[in-house]
Amino acid sequence: MSEVYAARRTRLRERCNAGGSAAALVSRPANVRYLAGAAPQGAVLLLGRTEDALLCAGPPSGRPADGRPDEALKVRVLPGPGGDPAVAATGIAADQGTESLAVEEHHLTVARHRAMRSVAAGLRLADLGCAVEQLRVVKDEEEISCLRIGAEIADQALGELLESILVGRTERHLALELERRLVDHGADGPAFATSVGTGPNSGRPGHRPTDRRVEEGDFLSVCLGAAYRGYRCEIGRTFVIGTSPADWQIELYDLVFAAQRAGREALAPGAACRDVDRAARQVLDCAGYADNLPALTGHGVGLEIDEDPQLSPAAMGKLDACVPVTVEPGVHLPGRGGVRIDDTLVVRPEADGGPELLTITTKELLAL
Amino acid sequence: MSEVYAARRTRLRERCNAGGSAAALVSRPANVRYLAGAAPQGAVLLLGRTEDALLCAGPPSGRPADGRPDEALKVRVLPGPGGDPAVAATGIAADQGTESLAVEEHHLTVARHRAMRSVAAGLRLADLGCAVEQLRVVKDEEEISCLRIGAEIADQALGELLESILVGRTERHLALELERRLVDHGADGPAFATSVGTGPNSGRPGHRPTDRRVEEGDFLSVCLGAAYRGYRCEIGRTFVIGTSPADWQIELYDLVFAAQRAGREALAPGAACRDVDRAARQVLDCAGYADNLPALTGHGVGLEIDEDPQLSPAAMGKLDACVPVTVEPGVHLPGRGGVRIDDTLVVRPEADGGPELLTITTKELLAL
Repeated sequence: MSEVYAARRTRLRERCNAGGSAAALVSRPANVRYLAGAAPQGAVLLLGRTEDALLCAGPPSGRPADGRPDEALKVRVLPGPGGDPAVAATGIAADQGTESLAVEEHHLTVARHRAMRSVAAGLRLADLGCAVEQLRVVKDEEEISCLRIGAEIADQALGELLESILVGRTERHLALELERRLVDHGADGPAFATSVGTGPNSGRPGHRPTDRRVEEGDFLSVCLGAAYRGYRCEIGRTFVIGTSPADWQIELYDLVFAAQRAGREALAPGAACRDVDRAARQVLDCAGYADNLPALTGHGVGLEIDEDPQLSPAAMGKLDACVPVTVEPGVHLPGRGGVRIDDTLVVRPEADGGPELLTITTKELLAL
Repeated sequence: MSEVYAARRTRLRERCNAGGSAAALVSRPANVRYLAGAAPQGAVLLLGRTEDALLCAGPPSGRPADGRPDEALKVRVLPGPGGDPAVAATGIAADQGTESLAVEEHHLTVARHRAMRSVAAGLRLADLGCAVEQLRVVKDEEEISCLRIGAEIADQALGELLESILVGRTERHLALELERRLVDHGADGPAFATSVGTGPNSGRPGHRPTDRRVEEGDFLSVCLGAAYRGYRCEIGRTFVIGTSPADWQIELYDLVFAAQRAGREALAPGAACRDVDRAARQVLDCAGYADNLPALTGHGVGLEIDEDPQLSPAAMGKLDACVPVTVEPGVHLPGRGGVRIDDTLVVRPEADGGPELLTITTKELLAL
């Protein structure tokens, strides 16, 4: 793995030098982990003129789930409590005779940035922008295999829940049960706060579980994901409770299913992100639900659950091969509930069989 | 409740005006909730020259656990996705003819701060500093009663776990089980990631649960807390697994217990924070564990699990009445494990009976 991290740092260093900075300081945790193999609490990565170093407030945790720092990196643990690794790293960069240090202005606070400036008067702090986030968009097969395992775990946890009695249980308990099962099956933990919505709460994007209990005739929508070796995937499904779904439930489900399929089928290297969004969205628009739609119909996943690219009407840019994204259109009708269907897929060229579906739980409308 | 929030905003406005700013923009979520009653995702609070407003990226969740926005506040939901409420609020402040707007430079990122400046050329952005965090240190009885209920919930969850079979279960499963029980008993959720450490992991501050299983003869240390109406408390206990603790375990436990009691007994209005720390720390220092001690022996709790004051050797300032703090000394011996005992208490004057203990689970050494 060490070569992988070194290669990533080399690519960043090239971008950085092209931008006129000889050194970079990476502070956003997911970015630190991507380049260093681990991101201990508060740690920052210095890509210095003369050496690279991972600066930590304390020793790395040692948990496999947290990753291991690349052995090729010098790991420096700050002496004593209360120090800021970013400030220490800035001092080191200055000592190395760096003139311009590129930092993540979208992550550093104004107060922290000032503290960094104060320890290195001669050093210019430039903006690294989202250079690391951009490097992270296209995944290697190692990263994709972590996502694939996470998706299998999420499928297992969801499948087991469907075999249990649901009526009478609260959204919060179902969510906790799912998170326990994720860990049972080897996840580091949930990839994000598990969402369980019943009845009027079903189909609401990002719904946070309440004490409402599952009732006969409800829509039940569930969105969960596993974190595995730091990589986060997502699956969402909607079910009907009881033997016979109502007509409006069947119609709404079929519609959202068609929209989600259209989005999945639009995934291809070179496809514009907004076109993928439109493919899914227009199915729902045409059915008259333009006002009930979320801002996004999908997004990238990886070390964070919400990464570039965004699949939305205003999105710029095109998809590349080996980019994992969610496709998750949904319709929520205030007071009645709704449907959400969410898969994680990897963009693949037609020659390789097209988009690779990671979350394989059935999308038939199940009556539980 | 509305008067309470209005009174808090008035106190902040006074500080702000004294600092030369007619208006303030509060963005740190716990600070927004303290002043507005709720902090929907991404919401900011503008204390404007002519009106106060809560600016939200989306509608408030409606979950009781998330609080309800003070009815006295105008709630503005940004039209369309992708907007930054902080930038919108800055524009409103400028339209109100504000010359100086105090912002939370310890929370805003450099990039966000720049975006705010760009929409209000004539407006000077000053630093509000930690003015709101300082207001939050002393709690009212309403806040303390939320902490008290949270502590009862944590005591219940811990008590139930102790009645179950522990040997053979993993740290991660015990942690999840505790978090499920917190929710069973009415918590919003865990106040922080529940820590369960066994054997060599026991007594390690902030230990994140692993797959290690509980074994006979282990120390088992547990640290958990409940969030109740946004308020977060903390309790930590250490147990021995099996019928007869080893001599070193008894000695270490008695020592940490003595240190923790010394810390609790030092809590009083007017006591210097560093003296409370010293009271607990010196018991462990004298026993030769100076190198095995955490940086803090306690800290404030409230809407966040780690607030001012800090109880540490370098801490400045004195305690006031109605300040809830943890007292949590511990010793961790690398490779062997250790002991941590952690209570949440409220500083009270002698006349009111001295410190109020919120977490009442026994601190006798239990062999489970």
